[in-house]
Amino acid sequence: MLLYDYFKTRKKVINDGLEHYLPSEKDYPEKIHKAMRYSVFAGGKRIRPILLFAIYEMLKGRKNLRGLNKLLPAAVALELVHTASLIHDDLPSMDNSKERRGKASLHVKFDNATAILAGDALITKAFEVLAEISNKEVAIKCIKILSHAISTRGMIGGQVIDLISANKKIKIETLKYIHLKKTGALLQAATDMACAFFGAEDNITIMLGNYAINLGLSYQIVDDILDEVGSFDILGKEPGEDSRNHKYTYPTILGLEQSKKMAEKLLRDAHNIIKNMPNHDVLKEFLDMIKERIP
Amino acid sequence: MLLYDYFKTRKKVINDGLEHYLPSEKDYPEKIHKAMRYSVFAGGKRIRPILLFAIYEMLKGRKNLRGLNKLLPAAVALELVHTASLIHDDLPSMDNSKERRGKASLHVKFDNATAILAGDALITKAFEVLAEISNKEVAIKCIKILSHAISTRGMIGGQVIDLISANKKIKIETLKYIHLKKTGALLQAATDMACAFFGAEDNITIMLGNYAINLGLSYQIVDDILDEVGSFDILGKEPGEDSRNHKYTYPTILGLEQSKKMAEKLLRDAHNIIKNMPNHDVLKEFLDMIKERIP
Repeated sequence: MLLYDYFKTRKKVINDGLEHYLPSEKDYPEKIHKAMRYSVFAGGKRIRPILLFAIYEMLKGRKNLRGLNKLLPAAVALELVHTASLIHDDLPSMDNSKERRGKASLHVKFDNATAILAGDALITKAFEVLAEISNKEVAIKCIKILSHAISTRGMIGGQVIDLISANKKIKIETLKYIHLKKTGALLQAATDMACAFFGAEDNITIMLGNYAINLGLSYQIVDDILDEVGSFDILGKEPGEDSRNHKYTYPTILGLEQSKKMAEKLLRDAHNIIKNMPNHDVLKEFLDMIKERIP
Repeated sequence: MLLYDYFKTRKKVINDGLEHYLPSEKDYPEKIHKAMRYSVFAGGKRIRPILLFAIYEMLKGRKNLRGLNKLLPAAVALELVHTASLIHDDLPSMDNSKERRGKASLHVKFDNATAILAGDALITKAFEVLAEISNKEVAIKCIKILSHAISTRGMIGGQVIDLISANKKIKIETLKYIHLKKTGALLQAATDMACAFFGAEDNITIMLGNYAINLGLSYQIVDDILDEVGSFDILGKEPGEDSRNHKYTYPTILGLEQSKKMAEKLLRDAHNIIKNMPNHDVLKEFLDMIKERIP
């Protein structure tokens, strides 16, 4: 199967799942459901749920699409939480981003109160959906994995330190902490959940978690590099935004060459984790997509 | 046992549970943990977790305190979610309340971003704690109950309609919807969870859920009445705030006498639900506390 088909078919499964689990725009109160759907269907790439599927299918063998149905609540929950974090991070009191994927941010399109409540509702919906997983042991495991990823030891912790660090000279360890938590935590939750469904040994779960962490960190470093030297076309947003916002980035702390080397090492290490496993082509593709962006 | 002792001992169990489950103020990132604890330990009456205990002890017989340990995750989760809802409702883009229980609201004491993230973290922590319930069947049930109570069919739905209704002439049905969802949903979650732990029949669960709904509605109506005619001493806050904020209330829509009658009927109906059950003294006390406030 061509990878193009892999991504396309899995993305459709995920979008159908989101459509199924989200309340209709016609449900009362309509406003909040419109807001939730506006952000969930704003053109996300569905990286986290696709990673969940890819890890599970690497361990279990490539599945027909129906075989993925039991993972669907986990796939949907990951994307709901990712969307919630973007909505809250974009708020004026946080990163104050007026656009997201070329469209108005939720609080601009609606209002701040609706954006706060839509984020709350999406986080809550994620746990509601996970509770639908038919195997109760796996359901509880996934709920523990997701709550850990969102928590102050995960994404929320990363956002707190990111906000505290604005306009400050920070150490490379602090920058790494921010990205590990803001990006790495939910990617690792995807691989952890896939391992929970498969019933993987702890050492496999940890290894694949490291793959997820390296994927997240290398993505962020390359994003920082492109913000420094890239064009609008490659970046998908105006370059130089980070430095204009006085944000410390990998290139500003380590320099461009050192940052590139770090990204390349993370990608190499991630490749070493998966290269001897069968059916690792999708996981390799994730790494290649980042590698190709390095200027 | 005197009721005074009942409330005092249960409140201590709940506060110890909150202390146990919340991250320490010394844990990194300290700021968010300080914020969470500031609001959780701001002097709440712990009505929802005490209601959980009281329902369970009515069904099962009065327990020694150790017998309540298995319900502790549910008790803690209810209070965390209640606190999260107060934090987010107080935000400038919502109700813009600068004080809560005589202290600065969280966003005033810290900042808006921290208040948003602390609310997110408390909701997430609630699900994390529920996943610790040893009986996995009961854990999943409680997670479904709580997610339903928070959702757009519950508290969030109520807050959305409350915000939309500001400065508008609304129908009594809309006002009832707001209170049912904003206050009733989480009280009913407390009785539903108690019934899940006991393994109660559906008809008992529904009956006791109606007790919780009547408790919430009557409390709100009496609060509205006191806002109209009460003094600072009785109300615990400046009276007249609702009408100054152009909020429609039971007295402004129904008149004072009709509102009183409605509250009295709700309390009577709630009493009829419990009066033939053994050990219903705590549940009766909840009703009496509201009744005594009617001027």
